[in-house]
Amino acid sequence: MATHHFHPTSYFNVIGTAEPCLRVADGDTVVTDTIDASGLDAKEGAAGSRPNPMTGPFFIEGAEPGDTLAVRIDRLTPSRATGWTFSPLAFTVLDPSTIVDRPASQRVVWDIDQKAGTVRLQEPPPGLEAFSPPLRPMIGCFGVAPAGGQALSTATSAQNGGNMDYRLFAPGTTAWFPVSVQGALFYLGDGHACQGDGEIVGTGIETSFEMEVTLHVLKRTIIWPRGETADDIFTIGNARPLDQALQHATTEMVRWLAEDYGLDARAASHLMGQVVRYDVGNVFNPAYTVACRIAKRWLTKK
Amino acid sequence: MATHHFHPTSYFNVIGTAEPCLRVADGDTVVTDTIDASGLDAKEGAAGSRPNPMTGPFFIEGAEPGDTLAVRIDRLTPSRATGWTFSPLAFTVLDPSTIVDRPASQRVVWDIDQKAGTVRLQEPPPGLEAFSPPLRPMIGCFGVAPAGGQALSTATSAQNGGNMDYRLFAPGTTAWFPVSVQGALFYLGDGHACQGDGEIVGTGIETSFEMEVTLHVLKRTIIWPRGETADDIFTIGNARPLDQALQHATTEMVRWLAEDYGLDARAASHLMGQVVRYDVGNVFNPAYTVACRIAKRWLTKK
Amino acid sequence: MATHHFHPTSYFNVIGTAEPCLRVADGDTVVTDTIDASGLDAKEGAAGSRPNPMTGPFFIEGAEPGDTLAVRIDRLTPSRATGWTFSPLAFTVLDPSTIVDRPASQRVVWDIDQKAGTVRLQEPPPGLEAFSPPLRPMIGCFGVAPAGGQALSTATSAQNGGNMDYRLFAPGTTAWFPVSVQGALFYLGDGHACQGDGEIVGTGIETSFEMEVTLHVLKRTIIWPRGETADDIFTIGNARPLDQALQHATTEMVRWLAEDYGLDARAASHLMGQVVRYDVGNVFNPAYTVACRIAKRWLTKK
Amino acid sequence: MATHHFHPTSYFNVIGTAEPCLRVADGDTVVTDTIDASGLDAKEGAAGSRPNPMTGPFFIEGAEPGDTLAVRIDRLTPSRATGWTFSPLAFTVLDPSTIVDRPASQRVVWDIDQKAGTVRLQEPPPGLEAFSPPLRPMIGCFGVAPAGGQALSTATSAQNGGNMDYRLFAPGTTAWFPVSVQGALFYLGDGHACQGDGEIVGTGIETSFEMEVTLHVLKRTIIWPRGETADDIFTIGNARPLDQALQHATTEMVRWLAEDYGLDARAASHLMGQVVRYDVGNVFNPAYTVACRIAKRWLTKK
Repeated sequence: MATHHFHPTSYFNVIGTAEPCLRVADGDTVVTDTIDASGLDAKEGAAGSRPNPMTGPFFIEGAEPGDTLAVRIDRLTPSRATGWTFSPLAFTVLDPSTIVDRPASQRVVWDIDQKAGTVRLQEPPPGLEAFSPPLRPMIGCFGVAPAGGQALSTATSAQNGGNMDYRLFAPGTTAWFPVSVQGALFYLGDGHACQGDGEIVGTGIETSFEMEVTLHVLKRTIIWPRGETADDIFTIGNARPLDQALQHATTEMVRWLAEDYGLDARAASHLMGQVVRYDVGNVFNPAYTVACRIAKRWLTKK
Repeated sequence: MATHHFHPTSYFNVIGTAEPCLRVADGDTVVTDTIDASGLDAKEGAAGSRPNPMTGPFFIEGAEPGDTLAVRIDRLTPSRATGWTFSPLAFTVLDPSTIVDRPASQRVVWDIDQKAGTVRLQEPPPGLEAFSPPLRPMIGCFGVAPAGGQALSTATSAQNGGNMDYRLFAPGTTAWFPVSVQGALFYLGDGHACQGDGEIVGTGIETSFEMEVTLHVLKRTIIWPRGETADDIFTIGNARPLDQALQHATTEMVRWLAEDYGLDARAASHLMGQVVRYDVGNVFNPAYTVACRIAKRWLTKK
Repeated sequence: MATHHFHPTSYFNVIGTAEPCLRVADGDTVVTDTIDASGLDAKEGAAGSRPNPMTGPFFIEGAEPGDTLAVRIDRLTPSRATGWTFSPLAFTVLDPSTIVDRPASQRVVWDIDQKAGTVRLQEPPPGLEAFSPPLRPMIGCFGVAPAGGQALSTATSAQNGGNMDYRLFAPGTTAWFPVSVQGALFYLGDGHACQGDGEIVGTGIETSFEMEVTLHVLKRTIIWPRGETADDIFTIGNARPLDQALQHATTEMVRWLAEDYGLDARAASHLMGQVVRYDVGNVFNPAYTVACRIAKRWLTKK
Repeated sequence: MATHHFHPTSYFNVIGTAEPCLRVADGDTVVTDTIDASGLDAKEGAAGSRPNPMTGPFFIEGAEPGDTLAVRIDRLTPSRATGWTFSPLAFTVLDPSTIVDRPASQRVVWDIDQKAGTVRLQEPPPGLEAFSPPLRPMIGCFGVAPAGGQALSTATSAQNGGNMDYRLFAPGTTAWFPVSVQGALFYLGDGHACQGDGEIVGTGIETSFEMEVTLHVLKRTIIWPRGETADDIFTIGNARPLDQALQHATTEMVRWLAEDYGLDARAASHLMGQVVRYDVGNVFNPAYTVACRIAKRWLTKK
């Protein structure tokens, strides 16, 4: 159960099979630096390039194709005092007929106040002078090498994870990814200091981070990413349109409820029909992300 | 500010222009009975027919095309002790390749315990013996006559409301609908004792209700339904795929933030980008429903 | 087998249950006038209003719910020498990110030369001086009253037909519609002098017509509109997104191949897999239209 | 203008940056073998593995990022006398509610009669005894290395081409691909002896081929694949849902009409509005394919 401190010097814009940056044992913890979505590091130096430069890949000893990699997000600490976002709203979330009136795209800077636990626009427009939502760090893009020799852009996501931009990938959450190659080859980056549902401005508050994660290999097989928070379990679907992402997530939840909670398809439907929650991870990237979420209070492990 | 008690004897399966069942003044309260989605009343007698038989239409004095009808949901009281749902999960939420293994559609009955504030399957399958989620009454289908002489099936929804199946249309919420005809012509029904996101079994817990609503005419124009709860404001988009429903809801929220909160498109994007929430009303009906929701704590009326 | 000449004086913007304008016998022919999508008649007088004012409804004696109405399009003769279109391309067919550069919407006029059998822009822009495609009259919007008391806007389409804007609804084609009410209640209008696939400028070349159709009642049941030309049979799906419209059309074709051509699901798939054609009727209206088409040379009636 | 004969011994299941199998000059012709979608070669030996094993990559001297690779399809000759398909129809093209009745997936064999120019099921089911559609060879999957180090599964397609399954990628057609890496790195394979629109059984008639293509480097930039046949020009969009694929193809056509034919956005819309054709390449793969096609008779090069 070692803790590894890794300081990357190069970054990846695809998630695929590459030479590991570090080999770690099942159960080890990794503390590492990530740079922001545009490649800026803790000193705002250009250390990598768009899109979403990744730290990694980490090779986890014992992880085999067909296994599952569990990634506990222990800590996400911004490594600088500012982050940035785009405005206005993305093309993907507006009625097309209104796009003609959309103002030009603009990058703005936010202050990140770790002590106060808040973020704030450096130059707030009228009406937002007092707007200071909580600092809520999350991982925008992480996952493992996909199957079959694919190398997938960190702009998008798939069964192996990737750029899901889901705000519950936050400290305290454990994420599960389906392993397709020896050692899993885990990548992470694209930290956000805050983000609403859908990543609807095309960014969260993008900044560099020190991230701490603990990696476990599970000898079980999943098809889509899964996650667990203090209160909930959730499954992830990544696809377009949102309908298809929701189908993947829902179908994966049905599988999970059967495997771990002893519920057949009919019982699962009775439970889900009354208490399921759907979250929109992103509705901006090439693949959209939907989470199917159920409170653990309704569930009993078999 | 009169309170009207209305006991319907006939019901509507389309929302359109019809002879009013009652004329009420701006600000009046209506207490009325609704039957369940299949037409069963408080005594489980067949009083109407599928889909979603509506009580109404109520003519609200002073409501003109271009106005907005505000419907405060004061109270939703189940008028019988049972409700029913379908199982298993709907075709629309499953990966198509898994549908071949889907068990046959089945109707089951739930007990509604108003005293305990819970619902419970009469014959729970293994694993759900203790499953008893809270009674959370909501209106599945309500709205006003659409424009241009249309009469829209209560199976679906549009700009005028209809079968949105969104669980925040619950007691304490005020819903807004765009008025297209004189008197607005308000319909309501399809009450659910409980329902998760998406109405993914094709039903909530369907039962008959006594519903109490208070109706106000606002001299302002909206395009899609809006709502307000104790904590949030939200806008509604109804369309397929979910992406388009989300676009309608998001665009309507941008309009609302401009009109009432003094935020231009750029400011609105800064706020929404960090704090917006998306809810899936239904992902089962011909038109899907997405709500774009913002906590009022982030907003200041101009 | 009478021929009726009917000159309408009022028009409908919804397709629903209304007082018939004329009662005709099974097998009769109707010759009637239609006005253009904006309501202009043969003299360019404003005779009706948007969207797509319909002539009708015609009551066909003997048509009962569950039957099929066959509409043979005998002749479509423009009743004036000009038509109009919009430009540029509709929002629905452009990459959203390019909409910001879209020129403003504009109405332009085309000359219709029936003798030459061509259409031509009155004021062609540079590069289109010689552009003179053939006159290809078609019906943009036609169908029968939908089920359950619905009245559907002529802006959209559904199982009962409506605003499908499919260019093979042209002289020589027979269209089939599922009958939901006594007498079928048939409406027609929205003639186009020409139109490419998809109605991607939001219009065909819109003009007024004298239309001649012959109406037969078939004692058989269909779910979605069907059609037959000299060379092909086709089925229609109307929905969003295009994927769903295509599913409806394909599934209806599988039904047709079983009913009339003795092909089971597997045989139908062997045939369709090699020779099916898909046409995009419209990708502009609230419901998009896809046709699934098969050449009759591959088919033998059972 | 050399002609190279290349006999591959290994194959690729991703299209990415790999060691070239052969370097050819701009203008050279390549004659090479391809194996079928499941890896069977001319002798039905297992030479490669699913999905769609590719021959290549060919490095074209002089091709630089930002250029376009023109691939003239000179000849596609089946290298064995049989091919295979799946049945019944794919999940993606059926109404979800009908999938429960779908027969099990089955592989069947077709005879390919090059002399007669036809294909025929070896064991036709009732009703298809005489079904013998024409042999119409096409390339299912081909393209160039994508940008940014991606390696994309040959199951899917993107801006760089890939598994588009469009039947006009046939002898006589020239396809254009956007070059993202030095030498373009061109791959090809997945030949079909015949295929209807949409690849709706999940396959064409899959067989091995000898393919002959001639490769030219164009010093111009495109965004999506383009093509030219004897009669038409066309552009390709690859995405889900079909709506988005259609948007990409349409937008690329607008660009092409401006670049080569002197038509601005408004003029392009006048032309396309009346004469555009949309073809569905595939509606089965992870990314669907739509072609936007215009007859050359309507076009004059500027």
